[in-house]
Amino acid sequence: MAGWDGDALIFAMQEAFEKTKGISKYGEVASYIPVLEKVDPEYFSLSISYQDKIYSIGDREVKFSIQSISKVISLIMAIELFGKDKVFEFVGMENCDKAFNGLGCVKKIPVNPMVNAGAIVIISMLYEKYREKTIDKFIEFIVNFSGRDDIYLDEEVYSSEIATCAMNRSIVHYLNHLNLIKDDCEEILEQYIKCCSVSANTEAIALMAEKIAMGNGDKVKSSSSSIACAIMATSGMYENTGEYMMRVGIPSKSGVSGIILGSSPGKCGLAVYSPRLNQYGNSYRGVKVMEILSESLNLNIYKG
Amino acid sequence: MAGWDGDALIFAMQEAFEKTKGISKYGEVASYIPVLEKVDPEYFSLSISYQDKIYSIGDREVKFSIQSISKVISLIMAIELFGKDKVFEFVGMENCDKAFNGLGCVKKIPVNPMVNAGAIVIISMLYEKYREKTIDKFIEFIVNFSGRDDIYLDEEVYSSEIATCAMNRSIVHYLNHLNLIKDDCEEILEQYIKCCSVSANTEAIALMAEKIAMGNGDKVKSSSSSIACAIMATSGMYENTGEYMMRVGIPSKSGVSGIILGSSPGKCGLAVYSPRLNQYGNSYRGVKVMEILSESLNLNIYKG
Amino acid sequence: MAGWDGDALIFAMQEAFEKTKGISKYGEVASYIPVLEKVDPEYFSLSISYQDKIYSIGDREVKFSIQSISKVISLIMAIELFGKDKVFEFVGMENCDKAFNGLGCVKKIPVNPMVNAGAIVIISMLYEKYREKTIDKFIEFIVNFSGRDDIYLDEEVYSSEIATCAMNRSIVHYLNHLNLIKDDCEEILEQYIKCCSVSANTEAIALMAEKIAMGNGDKVKSSSSSIACAIMATSGMYENTGEYMMRVGIPSKSGVSGIILGSSPGKCGLAVYSPRLNQYGNSYRGVKVMEILSESLNLNIYKG
Amino acid sequence: MAGWDGDALIFAMQEAFEKTKGISKYGEVASYIPVLEKVDPEYFSLSISYQDKIYSIGDREVKFSIQSISKVISLIMAIELFGKDKVFEFVGMENCDKAFNGLGCVKKIPVNPMVNAGAIVIISMLYEKYREKTIDKFIEFIVNFSGRDDIYLDEEVYSSEIATCAMNRSIVHYLNHLNLIKDDCEEILEQYIKCCSVSANTEAIALMAEKIAMGNGDKVKSSSSSIACAIMATSGMYENTGEYMMRVGIPSKSGVSGIILGSSPGKCGLAVYSPRLNQYGNSYRGVKVMEILSESLNLNIYKG
Repeated sequence: MAGWDGDALIFAMQEAFEKTKGISKYGEVASYIPVLEKVDPEYFSLSISYQDKIYSIGDREVKFSIQSISKVISLIMAIELFGKDKVFEFVGMENCDKAFNGLGCVKKIPVNPMVNAGAIVIISMLYEKYREKTIDKFIEFIVNFSGRDDIYLDEEVYSSEIATCAMNRSIVHYLNHLNLIKDDCEEILEQYIKCCSVSANTEAIALMAEKIAMGNGDKVKSSSSSIACAIMATSGMYENTGEYMMRVGIPSKSGVSGIILGSSPGKCGLAVYSPRLNQYGNSYRGVKVMEILSESLNLNIYKG
Repeated sequence: MAGWDGDALIFAMQEAFEKTKGISKYGEVASYIPVLEKVDPEYFSLSISYQDKIYSIGDREVKFSIQSISKVISLIMAIELFGKDKVFEFVGMENCDKAFNGLGCVKKIPVNPMVNAGAIVIISMLYEKYREKTIDKFIEFIVNFSGRDDIYLDEEVYSSEIATCAMNRSIVHYLNHLNLIKDDCEEILEQYIKCCSVSANTEAIALMAEKIAMGNGDKVKSSSSSIACAIMATSGMYENTGEYMMRVGIPSKSGVSGIILGSSPGKCGLAVYSPRLNQYGNSYRGVKVMEILSESLNLNIYKG
Repeated sequence: MAGWDGDALIFAMQEAFEKTKGISKYGEVASYIPVLEKVDPEYFSLSISYQDKIYSIGDREVKFSIQSISKVISLIMAIELFGKDKVFEFVGMENCDKAFNGLGCVKKIPVNPMVNAGAIVIISMLYEKYREKTIDKFIEFIVNFSGRDDIYLDEEVYSSEIATCAMNRSIVHYLNHLNLIKDDCEEILEQYIKCCSVSANTEAIALMAEKIAMGNGDKVKSSSSSIACAIMATSGMYENTGEYMMRVGIPSKSGVSGIILGSSPGKCGLAVYSPRLNQYGNSYRGVKVMEILSESLNLNIYKG
Repeated sequence: MAGWDGDALIFAMQEAFEKTKGISKYGEVASYIPVLEKVDPEYFSLSISYQDKIYSIGDREVKFSIQSISKVISLIMAIELFGKDKVFEFVGMENCDKAFNGLGCVKKIPVNPMVNAGAIVIISMLYEKYREKTIDKFIEFIVNFSGRDDIYLDEEVYSSEIATCAMNRSIVHYLNHLNLIKDDCEEILEQYIKCCSVSANTEAIALMAEKIAMGNGDKVKSSSSSIACAIMATSGMYENTGEYMMRVGIPSKSGVSGIILGSSPGKCGLAVYSPRLNQYGNSYRGVKVMEILSESLNLNIYKG
């Protein structure tokens, strides 16, 4: 047990904020999704959820689309609904060196659930059950999981993404060709992009991150949580996961809106939001913040 | 702190041994290195090093060549000698989906220090300093690191491997072409294969695994240890690392002789030896033993 | 000038027919397009067009869908409409070792116009001009080019293919992602598959093959014809083009219905139809027939 | 039969020389082999061998190392010695999109005899028979084939290349790993590089090119010649073969010294030398000269 008091957490968070001011202009806001480009690149928000209490600094009220964070959540939903054996029949568990948003990371099945193709396969499993209500069930899951109710589909983000998703459309049809998803390709794509377009703030993300970190009581949830952490640790930070885990050592997932969710097993949940991205598509400042917090709060899972 | 007594450890180890009897004939002894084929496939040895005390069951006296376990040790040596920044100029930190013993895992530099090309680059850095004494320094390091002195170069294994290492010889010349290693290719290859041919038993391996798991006091060692754990967690079990980490959750490195070294950060070191390998080149029974121990001793780093 | 009389041609054709009887059961009819599977695998037809006269043996009246033969025709149409420089801005001129019907053969642009992705790009250029009349213009071109008027869209083939074209649909959206085709992806795919579903017999194909072989008078046609021959010679027989050209030496294009079009520059046009395919997707018997004819009629372009 | 008189050939050659003066400074002399860098980049020599008579303009006396031209010659030697079936057991017949001097173009066997790995396999077959006399037999073959006797090993080129051949050394050991070449890797590499280092002028090259173009009488030679032409047509100009064949249409092989050998089947042999290379490693000016001659002398094999 970590045993922090709230002041210590806030102090560490403030310190990480201060120490990263110098790089706050580094990186570029994601441009391939038009609506993301319009966001204020100066936003900064950092939250830690510890023993179900939330600590935040910065723009805690600012909401952003969760983007690839949705991949962790849909993975957990799918494992809880269908069991891990079923899920990993259709998606692998390994990282690869191909672009997460392309087709190089699909062999017989997508290499893991954190690449777009893998996440789409997961969404297609949910779609089999929930059809067009998939997005509703997904939001409901987040509401329950985070305990926050101001979670909703950002229609503007969704419209922007669905209008510029040729690569993902190519992926769904390729997965259909491989018999990994059924013929309702367009519907599945729609649900996938809706899940990416869900709006939340760092507090909701940190609350979920803690649930994943703690295993959350019962056996099913404990298993899906540790799997989510394992997958994040090997594949959560795109093609930079190895370096990130070496420097930071907190199983994490990033989204191109500039959000990073971090689950420190047995300890706490973290979320940092800063829209400018590094070359790998991870929040430039966010990565550095996580590195500093890992050191100051001793969160590196590889340290004895 | 884990807080086991010795009886509890021995009980868990015995249980893992019993539960895996049914699969003791599964898998195949490595055949591409002739001398490995002659080994008794029934050997089984399991050791845990906890608070610097060693607990073993099975053929604890049996020695085997450490093979790819050498990659973790040479990485730690190199980081302590040259610093991590220098080391990771010449070798990457990411896993990839190409064979660990081929050239697909070399881009501008080898993808990580756990693939053959990466480990050869590391050895070449040691060779720069120690020349033909590299193997002596490597053994000396193991002796100090493990506290055991019956560590030596197995000349028969070395002769067998050096006679059948065309792929590794291709790799050294390719690395030379990339200007990653200097012109003494044959000498570097020799040192690399000598390091793989060092003989040890599970007790020596487990003692080192604990040092890696605990960070071992001073800051330099703490850093090299956590890096070694991180690298093992993303790339230590060949192309099956993701699945292994999901099921087992202990940063581990395997060698084709049938050995697995596992470092449970902050808790203990493990070593299991069983020569029959699964399709990925990892000890068939060894992987299962690690999975059972992870559960019974609560060693999964991703569990809250 | 070759200088054959009709009897000599018929004799050579009969001989090729006889000599390949022993392999007439070899190979498998294409199964991935359901309607192709229903065809009588025993059909055999062989035509040579020489000095605008047609010589045939076998089932000359039998029609089949032209499939990938359409790629040569649409390439010639596009060059004549837009010029070769414009065409080869959007599609390459090299062969590669990736499957012709996949995405591995697309780099910045598709590697050549004989792979599906390349042919789709060509069709999209025609579609820019002709919209939904593309298929009509395509058939009109064949009618003029071959001098035969019984050329039509086989609706049954089209229905079967459009219902099972997930891979091609993935390709069009990928090409759209690369900005190589505009947003009317589904319409372009439709026109592409319609062009593949055009019905003809070997006589019509051989007549066109001779036009391509002879350059057909004016300068524009001469250029598009020699380009078509060059492209066929480097990429016309899928991943077996090199071997085929070494054994046969006649620039050729095959289609998965079992048709091979061969253009012997300055000499004659050939077409052979036999539905069973070899492992590369080329007509098993057809390849052998072409090899025999190349020898007996001295058609190998590489022979002095 | 082409039916030129000597004046017509000289006129066409002069015209090609004049028309390419404007690009005589384009491209870069090969730099990865140190000795090639020292050559006068202004050298220009062009020869045509027609009906066993040689016509030349420019620096006909200047000699250069034949480099990859050796691949065509060793292929012909191997086919004549061992038969084409034996040869193509160990080397393929297809082009690929990987670098000719790397390992990407090796699958189970090298993709074709024009990539370095393929040519090394061919040399190893000759080495099996001739051992260290391989280079002598190779030169003897050229002397007989060209009818010129001033053919010799350029020791300075050889020394320069053998000192900087790490990539080729990596290739030989990889081929050894694949059991495609025996254990005398270093000896085979030596013979391979010696063959590349043979010195000749454009007249000797053109004389050989004509022999390849004409098939040279007997059946064995006719077969090896047409195979050489076919292989050149699909793979002779590195990764630019498709474009070259479309523009020029003469089966050709280039070498990084700036030489291009062209065999116009049934017509004549050509050789052009100009050291500056384009991005594909082919002589910049040489390619253009071939394009002009193809047009003026009507040598495009794809033109009717």
